[in-house]
Amino acid sequence: MKQFAKIFDNMQTKVPLVHFITNYVSVNDCANITLAIGGSPIMADDIHEAEQIVTSASALVINIGTLNAQTVEVMLAAGKQANKLKIPIILDPVGVGTSEFRNKTIETLMKELDFSVIKGNISEIKFLSDGISSTIGVDARSKDLLTEETMEETVVLLKKLSRMAGSVIVVTGKHDIIASSKEVFVVRNGNPMMGRVTGTGCMCGAVIACLVGANPKNVLKSTVAAVSSMGICGELAFDKLKKSDGGLNTYRSLIIDYIGKIDFDNFNKYQKIECYMTDR
Amino acid sequence: MKQFAKIFDNMQTKVPLVHFITNYVSVNDCANITLAIGGSPIMADDIHEAEQIVTSASALVINIGTLNAQTVEVMLAAGKQANKLKIPIILDPVGVGTSEFRNKTIETLMKELDFSVIKGNISEIKFLSDGISSTIGVDARSKDLLTEETMEETVVLLKKLSRMAGSVIVVTGKHDIIASSKEVFVVRNGNPMMGRVTGTGCMCGAVIACLVGANPKNVLKSTVAAVSSMGICGELAFDKLKKSDGGLNTYRSLIIDYIGKIDFDNFNKYQKIECYMTDR
Amino acid sequence: MKQFAKIFDNMQTKVPLVHFITNYVSVNDCANITLAIGGSPIMADDIHEAEQIVTSASALVINIGTLNAQTVEVMLAAGKQANKLKIPIILDPVGVGTSEFRNKTIETLMKELDFSVIKGNISEIKFLSDGISSTIGVDARSKDLLTEETMEETVVLLKKLSRMAGSVIVVTGKHDIIASSKEVFVVRNGNPMMGRVTGTGCMCGAVIACLVGANPKNVLKSTVAAVSSMGICGELAFDKLKKSDGGLNTYRSLIIDYIGKIDFDNFNKYQKIECYMTDR
Repeated sequence: MKQFAKIFDNMQTKVPLVHFITNYVSVNDCANITLAIGGSPIMADDIHEAEQIVTSASALVINIGTLNAQTVEVMLAAGKQANKLKIPIILDPVGVGTSEFRNKTIETLMKELDFSVIKGNISEIKFLSDGISSTIGVDARSKDLLTEETMEETVVLLKKLSRMAGSVIVVTGKHDIIASSKEVFVVRNGNPMMGRVTGTGCMCGAVIACLVGANPKNVLKSTVAAVSSMGICGELAFDKLKKSDGGLNTYRSLIIDYIGKIDFDNFNKYQKIECYMTDR
Repeated sequence: MKQFAKIFDNMQTKVPLVHFITNYVSVNDCANITLAIGGSPIMADDIHEAEQIVTSASALVINIGTLNAQTVEVMLAAGKQANKLKIPIILDPVGVGTSEFRNKTIETLMKELDFSVIKGNISEIKFLSDGISSTIGVDARSKDLLTEETMEETVVLLKKLSRMAGSVIVVTGKHDIIASSKEVFVVRNGNPMMGRVTGTGCMCGAVIACLVGANPKNVLKSTVAAVSSMGICGELAFDKLKKSDGGLNTYRSLIIDYIGKIDFDNFNKYQKIECYMTDR
Repeated sequence: MKQFAKIFDNMQTKVPLVHFITNYVSVNDCANITLAIGGSPIMADDIHEAEQIVTSASALVINIGTLNAQTVEVMLAAGKQANKLKIPIILDPVGVGTSEFRNKTIETLMKELDFSVIKGNISEIKFLSDGISSTIGVDARSKDLLTEETMEETVVLLKKLSRMAGSVIVVTGKHDIIASSKEVFVVRNGNPMMGRVTGTGCMCGAVIACLVGANPKNVLKSTVAAVSSMGICGELAFDKLKKSDGGLNTYRSLIIDYIGKIDFDNFNKYQKIECYMTDR
């Protein structure tokens, strides 16, 4: 836990600037959650400034939620600059598997850039791993859902993808799994209601970017801390929601509220992080 | 009412995927309200993927709120594919009448595509119907406002437009009117405060798309159910708002909250739907 | 105070249409806050309609938060038309100083257009004034922060910039300063938490546009009233937030809630506006 204390500590002292090239659906929530956890967001997706903006950033988020052709070259330019300067990049391959355009773009991005973290739902990550998916839309398909029974199989797949991509891999779902090629963590925080709010995945990517941006030498543990923090806030928000008889949009707002209050003590009290043992 | 029960039932079992080509102002609320009612939203407006994305969708929303030239061809491509596959399209001609560009675009869209539903405020629908409007901006002008006195006249206009366009026509306002060329319904749900929240019209379009997408053979009644549901949630949200002394943005959030709770029982209890008799 | 009563009065009777060419991060909040204070927002950034849209507007907002090359020409076209028709333009140079592209764009805009109001944080305004800045990202840098000690120096700088640009200059921060070349006001409303919500600066720009749009002959005082109103709502929202134990996103929402309730009486009761005396 001492390592995690340090991760939160760095977060609070460094105020990481996070450069987002992201979709226009959840962008406001991503900016707000970045400020809430203690970072500073900047959204910039024009080719004339992306390289320069990323130069002063602590992390870069590339999210293809509302991909358009013009932005692909911006992702590549900013990404290459980030790689050159060893600024961590977080990739969120939203909806990969739903269109050839997204598939091809992700193929190009993964070929040209090195990502510190790749984060998706199980349908997206499966697609990256074996090119086969039942993806329709941007939400995880029910037949892909993560269960205890499929855990071992999923972990093997993530480790393989991590080895191939050289990235920490995150799958969010009923449980979240965070894998490097050698170590695997299972996070049992969160609440199913998070799946009924748009952009909770993107917001999780923002929180990862903040913690990783403040702790670039400890990508795996920072990602674990971020994913667990997001889940904890989903739990606390749900508890508060029940008392007020609120609904889904109030829930969205409460998640960001709680991210603004998370610190190491809170995290330490509520985290449900397991080290997952596997021989394969 | 049995028909409406079936409409809500289909909604809950089918989880319709709704493809949005929409504005960047209310897009987050549209995604959230789609998830809230039980659909799955995907926003995609690049020419390289729009046709493919719509292929797996249950409904397509075309909303010109922040129209740009590049998107017009995407609307046409996705729309033609939707027509070919008999996927219902919902058109929201936001701000038509305010600029030649919007007018011309809508003219092209209506010439090239078949819409299941066209939804607008009274200024927009009047413009579509007779090309004459006092539209300035995207909000309905006061001299266009829908009253009991102008009801008969408006109904005639809507039936004519429905016949011309081959679409169900929806006018939202103090009362909402939903018209095919033969049948007309008046919905007396809703609250005036909805007009002071941006995007409630767009959100109504999203709810229509979800219900119609799950019930493509019953477009008229599904649209009536959707419009009434939106109004009911506006009423319930207003009641709750008063108790908490909240304001307009809390109200926006509460509307989405209540859409997440609407079902046939709720709908049946609160709906104020009238069949409107007319000889003309 | 009589002048301010008139300003709020005009706001309520005129329902100013505000044309926004703005970023996609805070655009929903800007639309909602415009409706809340009593205006009517229209977002339009395509070259084919910008000139026509602005023609019927009461004010134009140009905000470069997520600048892209295509939009620069739209800003110029709409801006020139606004100048021709003497429609006030409000400029928000978000993140100027962070990239050559933003710097060059702002240089072009300031050369080609006349702005009624230019509003930024201290890092942005310093950059405009002397081309020197420690700007990184879109948030004000700590070494630039506005204090009582640096007040005199800042006021001199603002007056100079006002003279150069022919605009009312607004700096938001711990205190807000509003300066023409001759008169300077300090507003001590607001709450530090506003800096942890994305888009509060953009929203302040929207409120300024509404009040100035309704009072084009009284730009300075209307701007002062708008800035103070925004701050007052930040205070009232904070008081309410504490009672509910809420967080940052609830706070964002409450600010808009209170803008929906502000009127001259409220303003008059809570305003902390000082006329700042200076010889320089």
